[in-house]
Amino acid sequence: MFWKSLFPGAIGSETPTGIGEHELLITEFVAANGERIHVYFSTTRDIDVYALEALCDAVGWAKRPLRKVRKALEFSFLIGSLWQERGQNRRLIGFARATSDHAFNATLWDVVVHPEVQGKGLGKTLMRQMIRELRREEISNITLFADPQVVTFYEELGFHPDPEGIKGMFWYPS
Amino acid sequence: MFWKSLFPGAIGSETPTGIGEHELLITEFVAANGERIHVYFSTTRDIDVYALEALCDAVGWAKRPLRKVRKALEFSFLIGSLWQERGQNRRLIGFARATSDHAFNATLWDVVVHPEVQGKGLGKTLMRQMIRELRREEISNITLFADPQVVTFYEELGFHPDPEGIKGMFWYPS
Ligand SMILES: CC(C)(COP(=O)(O)OP(=O)(O)OC[C@H]1O[C@@H](n2cnc3c(N)ncnc32)[C@H](O)[C@@H]1OP(=O)(O)O)[C@@H](O)C(=O)NCCC(=O)NCCS
Ligand SMILES: CC(C)(COP(=O)(O)OP(=O)(O)OC[C@H]1O[C@@H](n2cnc3c(N)ncnc32)[C@H](O)[C@@H]1OP(=O)(O)O)[C@@H](O)C(=O)NCCC(=O)NCCS
Repeated sequence: MFWKSLFPGAIGSETPTGIGEHELLITEFVAANGERIHVYFSTTRDIDVYALEALCDAVGWAKRPLRKVRKALEFSFLIGSLWQERGQNRRLIGFARATSDHAFNATLWDVVVHPEVQGKGLGKTLMRQMIRELRREEISNITLFADPQVVTFYEELGFHPDPEGIKGMFWYPS
Repeated sequence: MFWKSLFPGAIGSETPTGIGEHELLITEFVAANGERIHVYFSTTRDIDVYALEALCDAVGWAKRPLRKVRKALEFSFLIGSLWQERGQNRRLIGFARATSDHAFNATLWDVVVHPEVQGKGLGKTLMRQMIRELRREEISNITLFADPQVVTFYEELGFHPDPEGIKGMFWYPS
């Protein structure tokens, strides 16, 4: 595989609303022009909402009010992001977040990898890191709502659809 | 119907972690012995964990560490409860809670009505109040994971299973 795992590294710091911030070097590779490129997984809560919405836009998701995006980031339990670093340049290329009761359950939302770097294993790495963070906080019930085309992607990560007949349900005004 | 709706009443107060506390008289009836009984819906966060676990135990749910139950209550966005009042005596007879990012989505957990008062419409009233509170906070995406035997109960409230093929998924160590 083009991408390979390297060493973990932590930058510490605790936040009251969720998991402390840290960062992990995921892969390193050399671009065609000889330039070194690093990819990091981070739990920073300091996400630029414009960069995030540009990423979501790149996979065709509907625009959202930035005021609400900011609030959602503030009140998510865990925010995971992937960053591509070339020299001084750092670019957001992946994102996922989880709501939680901080005790029993967590639900993943907004899992996305930039189309330019999809299919290289980054989505799986991002999800594995999210699971690791949540398990570390003793969350035993990790859930999500998967679009039909990504059910297999999540199954390969250990997620099961409708276990014991449990149904995901959405409310719409009736 | 034995139970009928009366008037709303608010007791105010804002909390940083979620929706402000208020209370609503749901129904009033006269017991066989002539005693007046009132049932209230409340958003109080001041839930006795022993009373809550006794309620969950009454429907056969597994025991949970009280430390974690307390934490889950603290970090839930909305807590809804039903109380039966006879004179000075106030008893917890229903419960539901929601996790949320305070912006886009909320997920309902631990929906329960005491077996002694099930089948009287209290579960539906509790759920309608939860939906109302969440809508009032501009949450547009209300979700839950339903056990197979209660899918119809939730459908009657306007919840849809697997809309557009979206699958509820749970993670288990693989
Ligand atoms: C889903 C997503 C996060 C996966 O990220 P990624 O970096 O491309 O995924 P990876 O390279 O780690 O793994 C891809 C694996 O899942 C499969 N997969 C990913 N997306 C798929 C899709 N849309 N259709 C079919 N298979 C898909 C790939 O075939 C691959 O399988 P393999 O490992 O057996 O070869 C990314 O495709 C994405 O952002 N999609 C658009 C947004 C989206 O649908 N998010 C999920 C909403 S619930
Ligand atoms: C599910 C529950 C909260 C419903 O509360 P309730 O006060 O009994 O419900 P209501 O009286 O408002 O409404 C009951 C309606 O749902 C149906 N219903 C409720 N529970 C049902 C069950 N277990 N099986 C089949 N139907 C059920 C009733 O038949 C009734 O339908 P109707 O209005 O057409 O007559 C309650 O039964 C309960 O606590 N069950 C155990 C815990 C549980 O399963 N919670 C849900 C986990 S996802």
